[in-house]
Amino acid sequence: MSKPYVLGIDIGGTNTVFGIVDARGQVVASDSIKTRKHSNFDDYIAELHHEVTRMLRLNDAEDKIQGIGIGAPNANYYTGEIQNAPNLPWGNGILPIAEKVSKAFGGIPVAVTNDANAAALGEMTYGAARGMKDFIMITLGTGVGSGIVVNGQLVYGHDGFAGELGHVVMKRNNGRMCGCGRTGCLEAYCSATGVARTAREFLEIRTDPSLLRNIDIDAITSKDVYDAAIAGDKLAKEIFEYTGKILGEALADMVAFSSPQAIILFGGLAKSGELLMRPLRETFEASLFPIFKGKTKIILSELKESDAAVLGASALGWEAKFRYEVPSVSFATQTPTVSVPASGAATPKDEA
Amino acid sequence: MSKPYVLGIDIGGTNTVFGIVDARGQVVASDSIKTRKHSNFDDYIAELHHEVTRMLRLNDAEDKIQGIGIGAPNANYYTGEIQNAPNLPWGNGILPIAEKVSKAFGGIPVAVTNDANAAALGEMTYGAARGMKDFIMITLGTGVGSGIVVNGQLVYGHDGFAGELGHVVMKRNNGRMCGCGRTGCLEAYCSATGVARTAREFLEIRTDPSLLRNIDIDAITSKDVYDAAIAGDKLAKEIFEYTGKILGEALADMVAFSSPQAIILFGGLAKSGELLMRPLRETFEASLFPIFKGKTKIILSELKESDAAVLGASALGWEAKFRYEVPSVSFATQTPTVSVPASGAATPKDEA
Repeated sequence: MSKPYVLGIDIGGTNTVFGIVDARGQVVASDSIKTRKHSNFDDYIAELHHEVTRMLRLNDAEDKIQGIGIGAPNANYYTGEIQNAPNLPWGNGILPIAEKVSKAFGGIPVAVTNDANAAALGEMTYGAARGMKDFIMITLGTGVGSGIVVNGQLVYGHDGFAGELGHVVMKRNNGRMCGCGRTGCLEAYCSATGVARTAREFLEIRTDPSLLRNIDIDAITSKDVYDAAIAGDKLAKEIFEYTGKILGEALADMVAFSSPQAIILFGGLAKSGELLMRPLRETFEASLFPIFKGKTKIILSELKESDAAVLGASALGWEAKFRYEVPSVSFATQTPTVSVPASGAATPKDEA
Repeated sequence: MSKPYVLGIDIGGTNTVFGIVDARGQVVASDSIKTRKHSNFDDYIAELHHEVTRMLRLNDAEDKIQGIGIGAPNANYYTGEIQNAPNLPWGNGILPIAEKVSKAFGGIPVAVTNDANAAALGEMTYGAARGMKDFIMITLGTGVGSGIVVNGQLVYGHDGFAGELGHVVMKRNNGRMCGCGRTGCLEAYCSATGVARTAREFLEIRTDPSLLRNIDIDAITSKDVYDAAIAGDKLAKEIFEYTGKILGEALADMVAFSSPQAIILFGGLAKSGELLMRPLRETFEASLFPIFKGKTKIILSELKESDAAVLGASALGWEAKFRYEVPSVSFATQTPTVSVPASGAATPKDEA
């Protein structure tokens, strides 16, 4: 057989990005469509299939795709479905995306998971977590997502939705409202929007001067806070201190759970450099249960941001090949192959 | 071969309990020695070997032991060592217990882990977690311990010490001092000693009458609080409300991590019945991230308390058989077999 490829598809609220990826993690080609163009899910699938097929033809890759991995909000690895994703335009029900995409592509195996889990797989397959069997991926974007790897396996939990570490509670009294309907979640403090909220709070409560006072308070973004901090603004620096401290406390509790070799940060906020990383590392080390001190690294993703979503989804494509290879098994009724320890099923690495 | 047995050894600060266990989880025989009798570790091992051998002879089981599992404080599954256990009498260093016990017993494979992990294995092998692949065991004793199972495998983490959920931080401001040197840990509130501390706090701060005021305040135990609550004492009931609420919040955060099918409670405090379970369940459900609501059961251990420690350790004995069966592999350098998904090693259940 000629050189094998997988297809990675990342479905975001605005764009759907897809790419052809080889076994070494090179993105051979990529393209995108608008996620919201079709309010009918089948029309969306048809356009996706059409555009992907065009890309495959252009790259002489039509017969080389071994598997398709899809990262999408609320996507469930076990069922192959997107379940109640409010940021997608196809209603608040269940979308059997793995089955639809596989059918559109003539039966190529498809596996799905949420974007943070895909990021963790991407990091494990091609990035900073190569060779690690225990690590946690934290995505610091508009929200805070997570993908947890234990014993070399992604943690899906009994229902496929494990790893919602953006929603551990960091403030149990007078915590901020979170988009999830609860209060005090990590995401309400340590996401890009959380940083902007902290800026608004600080500016309202305090009276000291700040470059941020030159900006419409309702329009302040985490980027504005970053720019002000880099320009030496004291209040802006304190916002990063505050953010890093809460994140450090949260990560220390995560270590008590799975004692990972590393926690890998990804996303816009993770690129704030020492403004965030210094208070984060200091609080993290100080907050660890004694037996864990000095053992867990906090590092940054090694994947290029422009490629990361496609790479992460594509990593799942290799896995799809092994999950769904048996043609008689239907997606809807497939039980997960993750099972009792060492049950003998093949993994991508075994055969790659 | 005749009917196979394993040996379970539970090393506590006071007693070392050991028993012969069959494949169906029947404790064929058990006995104990005093952990603190010998200040020299080798003397302790010699007495343990002597007494276990006597028990084996009496039960005609000398040639039937397939593996030995040991539960002990700070015992590390990967290294086979007890590392810096302050409650054991053999100094604060590293004790190569798996190797010493295996040598004493002529090379029978030995595996070790801490007591809470052993409890989780016991529950999975013989108790309430049979058939479950994702669950969390919480032991509510003098302290709060935990054993986490993901994909049917115990979570050991990169260093062997994962699963210290008694030390996630529940009060970030003015939290109670914890025995670990930090403040606000779950264990400082939801252990038997935590309940007694809550009683003292409530009695000092408040002025309302309580049966507990008839007891020397420094001598109050969680049992006293239970007895008072059962007798209808309002303040004592509120202590359980307070305890259940904190535990419920903690367990809800744990679900965000691994989305377990069940959380299994074990230990003295877990037997407080609805006094604890009602506020615990109510707060737990109310605190869950929406996608997890109504999915994770909180249940009680199904193992008899008198047998549980030996059964838990013995469950690891079946695993030891498969970890260490190759005679040429030494304990000290053995890398863990827990590994990438489905690495092909057999499990006790495969052959039982």
